[in-house]
Amino acid sequence: MGAVNAGLVDRVPKQDRSRATRQRLLEAAVACLAEHGWAGSTVSVVAERAGVSRGAAQHHFPTREDLFTAAVEYVAEQRSTALRALFPDGPADRRAVVRALVDLYTGPVFRAALHLWVAASNEDQLRPRVTELEARVGRETHHIAVELLDADESRPGVRETVQGLLDMARGLGLANLLTDDGARRERVVAQWGNILDEVLD
Amino acid sequence: MGAVNAGLVDRVPKQDRSRATRQRLLEAAVACLAEHGWAGSTVSVVAERAGVSRGAAQHHFPTREDLFTAAVEYVAEQRSTALRALFPDGPADRRAVVRALVDLYTGPVFRAALHLWVAASNEDQLRPRVTELEARVGRETHHIAVELLDADESRPGVRETVQGLLDMARGLGLANLLTDDGARRERVVAQWGNILDEVLD
Repeated sequence: MGAVNAGLVDRVPKQDRSRATRQRLLEAAVACLAEHGWAGSTVSVVAERAGVSRGAAQHHFPTREDLFTAAVEYVAEQRSTALRALFPDGPADRRAVVRALVDLYTGPVFRAALHLWVAASNEDQLRPRVTELEARVGRETHHIAVELLDADESRPGVRETVQGLLDMARGLGLANLLTDDGARRERVVAQWGNILDEVLD
Repeated sequence: MGAVNAGLVDRVPKQDRSRATRQRLLEAAVACLAEHGWAGSTVSVVAERAGVSRGAAQHHFPTREDLFTAAVEYVAEQRSTALRALFPDGPADRRAVVRALVDLYTGPVFRAALHLWVAASNEDQLRPRVTELEARVGRETHHIAVELLDADESRPGVRETVQGLLDMARGLGLANLLTDDGARRERVVAQWGNILDEVLD
């Protein structure tokens, strides 16, 4: 019994360390993708950035594809959680919700995801993984959007209205890739927030 | 006089050949970008695809950046011309115009442009060229959209409404990158065509 307890005590910090290593690798992978693109993002580069040996990185993620799809999924989940936390009482002012949804698609996380998508369109090894990931993340985001916008999808056209809004958000993310598009985006979001509020009522 | 005329006669077919070579290079460059991405698109690969010597390719386009930005600009101009030709009488049924605008952002030309944008976000040599090109093509597309949608930009919010539509079109292009998103896109476009028609009246 004493030996079992001692074993548990030893294992817990080890698991914590392992979890912390994994998380450092995932965060480094996203930062690396956003900064250097797919061509410049290898397991070695990420391991070095995370301060982890290449062997330890490969223990957690056997292939390059494993590492980068897990990384984009990890940050997408983090962002979903953060989005829900912004509106703890559920449905909220629609203009604020539209703004928060669009914010999901600007910044380094979207940039990293975009690099992964574009690379997947030319790499057969990557494509099925990213396609599946994109579908999963897209469904989750749609689900949150419907809930927070208090959109009644049983009414004709409402589902497509929300989908179009999320497509617009992705397009706004793309427009922010090369230049700071913040001022224009602010005006577009304000106007479409008003339109959506009317259409969804 | 006879010698001058003879010189002219000789020069005309040479100019034609030169123009045809340039055009073949531009078309091969776009196809190459769409299929292989920026990393797989070099002047040599494009020259071979176009059936042109590497030297001739470099005569027309001294750098890789020259070739690919010229190529994306060339096809963007072709598509603008084709879009105007679809609606020769100017303003038209808004649902049809929305559909035609969204069509600009699906298919190999958008895919090629997307590869160029994403590469430009990580390559300092490419970024200013592509930023400038994107701004120019974006302005031209906005101009055509305003005209064909019969949108009165002197009214508050109309400019931002049209901009948001074009952002949505780019987002729909992105959603079509890894899978055939045609059926979903069709429903989104139908719904947003209705919304836009009401908002703009």
